[in-house]
Amino acid sequence: MEIRRYKHDAAYSYTLGMALTIELISKKDSYLIRKIYVHPDYVPKDNKYNIFKICKEAQLPIEINQKIFNRLSTKENVYVIGIFDKHDRNVESGKSHVVLVNPSDSGNLGTILRTGLGFGFKDYVIIKPGVDIYDPKTIRSSMGAFFHVRFTYYDSFEQYRQEFLNHQMYLFMLDGKCNLKDMREMPQKKPFSLVFGNEGSGLPDIFHNYGDSIYIEHNHEIDSLNLSVAFGIAANAFSE
Amino acid sequence: MEIRRYKHDAAYSYTLGMALTIELISKKDSYLIRKIYVHPDYVPKDNKYNIFKICKEAQLPIEINQKIFNRLSTKENVYVIGIFDKHDRNVESGKSHVVLVNPSDSGNLGTILRTGLGFGFKDYVIIKPGVDIYDPKTIRSSMGAFFHVRFTYYDSFEQYRQEFLNHQMYLFMLDGKCNLKDMREMPQKKPFSLVFGNEGSGLPDIFHNYGDSIYIEHNHEIDSLNLSVAFGIAANAFSE
Repeated sequence: MEIRRYKHDAAYSYTLGMALTIELISKKDSYLIRKIYVHPDYVPKDNKYNIFKICKEAQLPIEINQKIFNRLSTKENVYVIGIFDKHDRNVESGKSHVVLVNPSDSGNLGTILRTGLGFGFKDYVIIKPGVDIYDPKTIRSSMGAFFHVRFTYYDSFEQYRQEFLNHQMYLFMLDGKCNLKDMREMPQKKPFSLVFGNEGSGLPDIFHNYGDSIYIEHNHEIDSLNLSVAFGIAANAFSE
Repeated sequence: MEIRRYKHDAAYSYTLGMALTIELISKKDSYLIRKIYVHPDYVPKDNKYNIFKICKEAQLPIEINQKIFNRLSTKENVYVIGIFDKHDRNVESGKSHVVLVNPSDSGNLGTILRTGLGFGFKDYVIIKPGVDIYDPKTIRSSMGAFFHVRFTYYDSFEQYRQEFLNHQMYLFMLDGKCNLKDMREMPQKKPFSLVFGNEGSGLPDIFHNYGDSIYIEHNHEIDSLNLSVAFGIAANAFSE
């Protein structure tokens, strides 16, 4: 089967670049890896970062192929691609979650996974419609964090909430009731869910009914913070 | 003179999109605006956001022109462009600064301006080599914050430091000596400078000599935080 540029309905996705592909290979027990492709111009950095050696040790099929790079990659500095089967790893009950309602930017989503993983969050819920977490752009901007997190898509926030009634919901809203700075001194009720809205429109007003709404204090010279920055500030405050 | 796609040595830069262009026009006392270009398919949103009305009131030249959009914009949803002369507004003494050493990503720089402005930082120092703050990509990702900040480029950090010896330097480094969380309780010595390194390589070791090095605590599942996220967490902690 010919590997084409990623589409949402594909059964596979891929890593663009050496570092990401090594991350994928380190998770080969969780993901079925179809093949590793190497660009003819690839030069191993050193013995440790030699993709041929790594693939041999991991017993993975490898192929030198220039055409696939023209098809899949728009960046010039990509010399290694790893193709893997999609495979859902659902969020766990009992763990605190990050919930993104209608996220629309793949780059932001990847940055959120990277940041969240660094602050101890491994469970991500996306309320539809939302960008595709398997998009190679998300995987790339996650810097490999994608391979270390769990995620589940839900059709509605209500559906998610019914399944996790025991979660304390913290809703990040521009007109939230509590200042995040004041939350630092308060005991956190676990498990909890940190809930964020769309990049442009935020969370609809109705979310005030679902739990404690929180705002990140900033002046009025800007309309709002970038979603991944706001998430970073929140995840840092709620990290252990 | 024909307006071409932005290059570093151009005497002008431009805003891509209606919201940014309105921000530019609101700053017409600080910037010489050459002309506002409107796409033939432009439709005013309402009477308040009618670019023809706004330009008339501001006494600015306006031109309907399709070709310039093909030349300057890669995005499809841009119907208004504002061309303005570059004009340096240097950082002020006595104010706290944000110092970026060798920043390499225009999008990150824009997000930093947006975030920083929201937390009260109006003065930005860039140590060369660094991306061009006038790049339309930076202006766009700043969401207009660009027009409300001051900035100066320096050839070296040493040169900057000599000029602002009264500044308390806070150096953000992966191997910093103080945890940012512990800094919150400490009195801040003003004016101060928040100093950040390059996206990939961070601040060189020598920066340990220049003041108090600080780290943002995260686990070892990630190598580092994204620069604009790290900056957001820091700026939030140091905001008034």
